[in-house]
Amino acid sequence: MLLHRAVIPCLRQACRLQSVPSRLCIRACSTNDSLQPQCPSLAFSGANSSTRGWRVMGTLLGLGAVLAYHDHRCRAAEKSPHIYTREEVKSHSSLETRIWVTLGCEVFDVTEFVDLHPGGPSKLMLAAGGPLEPFWALYAVHDQAHVREILAQYKVGELSSEDKAPSTLKTSDPYADDPVRHPALKVNSQRPFNAEPPPELLTENYITPNPIFFTRNHLPVPNLEPETYRLHVVGPPGCQSLSLSLDDLYQFPKHEVTVTLQCAGNRRSEMTQFKEVKGLEWNAGAISTARWAGARLCDVLAKAGHQLRETEAHVCFEGLDSDPTGTAYGASIPLARAMDPEAEVLLAYEMNGQPLPRDHGFPVRVVVPGVVGARHVKWLGKVSVEPEESYSHWQRRDYKGFSPSVDWDTVDFDSAPSIQELPVQSAITEPKDGETVQSGEVTIKGYAWSGGGRAIVRVDVSLDGGLTWQVAELNGEEQRPRKAWAWRLWQLQAPVPAGKKELNIVCKAVDDSYNVQPDSVAPIWNLRGVLSNAWHRVHVRVTP
Amino acid sequence: MLLHRAVIPCLRQACRLQSVPSRLCIRACSTNDSLQPQCPSLAFSGANSSTRGWRVMGTLLGLGAVLAYHDHRCRAAEKSPHIYTREEVKSHSSLETRIWVTLGCEVFDVTEFVDLHPGGPSKLMLAAGGPLEPFWALYAVHDQAHVREILAQYKVGELSSEDKAPSTLKTSDPYADDPVRHPALKVNSQRPFNAEPPPELLTENYITPNPIFFTRNHLPVPNLEPETYRLHVVGPPGCQSLSLSLDDLYQFPKHEVTVTLQCAGNRRSEMTQFKEVKGLEWNAGAISTARWAGARLCDVLAKAGHQLRETEAHVCFEGLDSDPTGTAYGASIPLARAMDPEAEVLLAYEMNGQPLPRDHGFPVRVVVPGVVGARHVKWLGKVSVEPEESYSHWQRRDYKGFSPSVDWDTVDFDSAPSIQELPVQSAITEPKDGETVQSGEVTIKGYAWSGGGRAIVRVDVSLDGGLTWQVAELNGEEQRPRKAWAWRLWQLQAPVPAGKKELNIVCKAVDDSYNVQPDSVAPIWNLRGVLSNAWHRVHVRVTP
Repeated sequence: MLLHRAVIPCLRQACRLQSVPSRLCIRACSTNDSLQPQCPSLAFSGANSSTRGWRVMGTLLGLGAVLAYHDHRCRAAEKSPHIYTREEVKSHSSLETRIWVTLGCEVFDVTEFVDLHPGGPSKLMLAAGGPLEPFWALYAVHDQAHVREILAQYKVGELSSEDKAPSTLKTSDPYADDPVRHPALKVNSQRPFNAEPPPELLTENYITPNPIFFTRNHLPVPNLEPETYRLHVVGPPGCQSLSLSLDDLYQFPKHEVTVTLQCAGNRRSEMTQFKEVKGLEWNAGAISTARWAGARLCDVLAKAGHQLRETEAHVCFEGLDSDPTGTAYGASIPLARAMDPEAEVLLAYEMNGQPLPRDHGFPVRVVVPGVVGARHVKWLGKVSVEPEESYSHWQRRDYKGFSPSVDWDTVDFDSAPSIQELPVQSAITEPKDGETVQSGEVTIKGYAWSGGGRAIVRVDVSLDGGLTWQVAELNGEEQRPRKAWAWRLWQLQAPVPAGKKELNIVCKAVDDSYNVQPDSVAPIWNLRGVLSNAWHRVHVRVTP
Repeated sequence: MLLHRAVIPCLRQACRLQSVPSRLCIRACSTNDSLQPQCPSLAFSGANSSTRGWRVMGTLLGLGAVLAYHDHRCRAAEKSPHIYTREEVKSHSSLETRIWVTLGCEVFDVTEFVDLHPGGPSKLMLAAGGPLEPFWALYAVHDQAHVREILAQYKVGELSSEDKAPSTLKTSDPYADDPVRHPALKVNSQRPFNAEPPPELLTENYITPNPIFFTRNHLPVPNLEPETYRLHVVGPPGCQSLSLSLDDLYQFPKHEVTVTLQCAGNRRSEMTQFKEVKGLEWNAGAISTARWAGARLCDVLAKAGHQLRETEAHVCFEGLDSDPTGTAYGASIPLARAMDPEAEVLLAYEMNGQPLPRDHGFPVRVVVPGVVGARHVKWLGKVSVEPEESYSHWQRRDYKGFSPSVDWDTVDFDSAPSIQELPVQSAITEPKDGETVQSGEVTIKGYAWSGGGRAIVRVDVSLDGGLTWQVAELNGEEQRPRKAWAWRLWQLQAPVPAGKKELNIVCKAVDDSYNVQPDSVAPIWNLRGVLSNAWHRVHVRVTP
């Protein structure tokens, strides 16, 4: 069975390569001959008549025989390839140690290819020291014969037989049952799992693919059965509560909306650079955008008998994730927002056309457009309407903003309102800080978003640290008035001023209330490192 | 008498030019010499001793003799100027035929100046083919020596003697009927009247007294009779329009709300210090707060048969104030805001328990809580619901924000949304810039406000230019959630650090979406000088 697993990818490859034009194959083979002493397993499977014959025979004789023959021939042809462990591969993840990657059982040294990668060197570097599959799964353009041919040139060996099986998590760990994550995610914390997509992937798509959507977990990921899942909706006094199955939720009108979620701690690392804060070291990637679908909270609350009240009230949410004491994650939003159909608050069960991934709240999470991520409670277990905000730690003792003068000795959490709508935000995703750019013209890319449904109306970009500005082009979906729940991506192509050896690139956004980002981080610094929305700055060198 | 009329402007100029620095006069004269073969009548009136002598003599001998001499000298100096009729001038009213205008007896070809006109080409084009006087009477900023000097360069001739009589347009002062104002107001422009309360009065009361409420007029104040006043509310297609008397308006439920109004140009003077902008020199007093009462706009619109629409629509307002061409002041707000009872948009007929003062829109004005002052149309004459925003100049070609990189050559007004909600704002009203304060303890006072009903949650104050911060105490009415339409006043009593000889006092506010004010003015500078909400700074000396 192990043998089977190891050989299947080789066979799959072999079959694919049959359709490759011979010109490419020749190049691939001759390169292999001259540069690669180990005849790669891909080389033998070039489009020649004998392989084609074997394929036919394989079909006739049955898969088992073919696999056995292939395995034999692979091994013979390779003359005992070098065998590496995953640990060894992992140690080759920089230009200094050379860049290795794996595909199936094979190991490749792609150092020489990094600069030739059509998607840019930085994208390939995301996979350095690990498997290519998760990235190829995201960007299907790779799954073509000629890409595999190119790769074949760089083969240096194979994985050891123990390492051919996928790694498993330890079972004693409360996080052992956490789902497997995409390796592109930059992990800020494994337990609980918190990770962000790298900037160069973040703005690759207007809609963030589910596997690289930033993940903010406060506790282990619960493993919930869709058949037995129930959402408890507490009714008003004198009314019965609802216990809704997934099927019950599906009966409400399905509402879809594109919403950007942002963690209150996005860009916290910039605050840390000024002065230490308490919190995960998020860079600019704790923000992502998805198309969410589900029942509108206002419909579910109405079904339970709730209506808008004259006095202020709050809708409290409880997750089914809990700490060892049994305390669940919780948060609340004002009832007025929850009951407003125009606010489009969802009990979402779909994310980009798929059931919610486990990391994003399977089977049901709250989505509160325009509001800080912390209120979008995942693995939703309970909804109630209360006269006060949620008593959860995360509502009352976290996710609040304070003056830079407030420290842990003087902080009074009751003195500040819980964060709901977030301020205007933008960041540069390309080029990266410290990168070297070509002289001539530079392309700058990024995102911009504001809370409360306020649309982004402009992004200004500076190449000289903020002395002069140019207006970036806004891309992505046009936003509806008062319901600009999702980000705009933006880009600027600008000539690099002649003779410049470095650029201090800065961006700042303006929303439709004409709020702007503050110039610098120190005056908005706060002890929890939230609300970090100063101008985003990237320093790059220019090649002469 | 005819002679008198024609020559008076020349004499007036001569007198004014005496106070112009000689540098300016020399420049003006040399430009005239080199570029204008016809010696302009203005050139002779430079500040030279012979003219000054003639002025004294004129006073002695009597006006008649001086006028006669001036007339003679004008004609002699011009060596028989070209003579044109008003009809001929009128035919020059487009770029194709060139743009001519008259002032007094003189004719000017201002084609080359149209694009340079500081008020915008469109304003100057209103006078094309005719006299400037009616417009200069409206916009008194023109009545300055250097403006006349610029004009002198474009002189092409004079009016025929039959045509020297004034045109049929009234040249009498359209502002003659404006109300008497409170002497405490700091006047930025008399015609139209624009004035702000001095800072030390501004935060004396939470509610601004009517007589010192800041006044922003675009045109002369109409004098309307309450008995004959009618508000025209256009009905939807197929419905009759309403013509509402004041008594009719009183029949709607009376709604009261405390609302802060702020001009988009508040604190413009700080932008001007960085770089010249076009607009009135407002300090930090173009903001005031009143208790308004009236009919809710949503009730009046509903009575006329309007309801909320699926598609975006706008409620357009027209004032009964108008310019010489009959164009009324106009503006619009989105229908969604107008129809939302929670937005509390009023057709107000009371201000702080009194009928509206004439300067503030008697008998009826719009009050749009949380929105820029420009949409609170005064002397309201007409309300209609349209698929597009108001086509008014003030909606489409003014009151918009742009990047600092945009100038009058590159500005595209269609590229920016009209200002509706304003960004978070705060300013220091005590002590005043340049003041001397006692050592020991200093009391700092000010106001803070944000648009869109967003409450002020904190004001940070610094005594050291923004290095360290203290949290001010918020006073004034507690704000309702999502309906924080009025400002908070704030104050901080702080010890003056020992040995300090000066303080750089700074304030910055945070609203409940956690938007903050930007640090500095240069990066938010814009050609119209609107949205000036950088940290407010006051420099004071400390008595030893």
